[in-house]
Amino acid sequence: MSATETPVNNGVNVEALLGAREALASAPEAAQFKWRASCEWQNGTHSNSTVEGFFGLGEEQNHRTKYSFDMDHPEIFASEDNGATPVEYVLVGLAGCLTAGVAAVAQNREIQLRKVSATIEGDMDVRGILGMDSDIRNGFSGITVTYDIDADASPAEIQALVAQSQKRSAVYDIITNPTDVRVKVN
Amino acid sequence: MSATETPVNNGVNVEALLGAREALASAPEAAQFKWRASCEWQNGTHSNSTVEGFFGLGEEQNHRTKYSFDMDHPEIFASEDNGATPVEYVLVGLAGCLTAGVAAVAQNREIQLRKVSATIEGDMDVRGILGMDSDIRNGFSGITVTYDIDADASPAEIQALVAQSQKRSAVYDIITNPTDVRVKVN
Repeated sequence: MSATETPVNNGVNVEALLGAREALASAPEAAQFKWRASCEWQNGTHSNSTVEGFFGLGEEQNHRTKYSFDMDHPEIFASEDNGATPVEYVLVGLAGCLTAGVAAVAQNREIQLRKVSATIEGDMDVRGILGMDSDIRNGFSGITVTYDIDADASPAEIQALVAQSQKRSAVYDIITNPTDVRVKVN
Repeated sequence: MSATETPVNNGVNVEALLGAREALASAPEAAQFKWRASCEWQNGTHSNSTVEGFFGLGEEQNHRTKYSFDMDHPEIFASEDNGATPVEYVLVGLAGCLTAGVAAVAQNREIQLRKVSATIEGDMDVRGILGMDSDIRNGFSGITVTYDIDADASPAEIQALVAQSQKRSAVYDIITNPTDVRVKVN
């Protein structure tokens, strides 16, 4: 087969997503999702969280399996480094969300992807979390994501892919805009 | 030993953290950290991210080992569910950050923790990410974290522990306040 005869396949079922969009237009209550995690403190700054069930399409759903995540602080913070730090989990989530978006948008635009890599870096002045200066925030002062993309497309088309992925990314929205978080104790 | 003779031990080295605070007061450049992740697209919405190196205390640092994370969308989104979703990673990070904070604050306040569990839930109207209505955001409309804490402290002291953890949490700050994210393509 010549290149023009090969169908674009990035492994994203765009037809199903477009079908879901049509179905949800007439059933907006099915679009109300609840994503969940459960966290158990282990010792020190080490905790373990699991992800298994969620709610969506009007009923309880389950992942294929239960996912388990250890989190800790590194040894230079006098901790045991039993897992990635919580802020690194946020970077992982952002990279994964944007990358899934790149694949989905590429499929919709009939652009064959060959390789997509991203590096992501968040700057933080740790004097914030140490409570040393109330003018320094606890979180990242900024995040940079850098993509390397090998695809059957022009540089401008690749730029547009990434821009559209940002526009539809849940985690990009969560990080760039404020979200209300309520913390309670039973 | 009676209860009053048992030293409080939540596994957090508070002395080291207070020492770090003193050391960084005279060396603010050492407090500039860079946290990183690298992401490789696999297929469809499936990606794998790794976390290993970071920058802090003026030099390159490494975790004890490389941490690896698979992310994907669930089967009801016509994906293969090869990992937790990116937004669940954000919830995991928030739960871990607040929980590490509870342990650190409890240690500083000499409160012995016995058990700390949290459930976390993020509400999302998926019509946002599907691009169905520009008034619906892509991210969570709100997040609720619910703690169950068994500790050698009064209910009011436990409430205060959790409140102080929120105040110093990096991920809580990242989610509740806007952060600048720059996305570029090489």
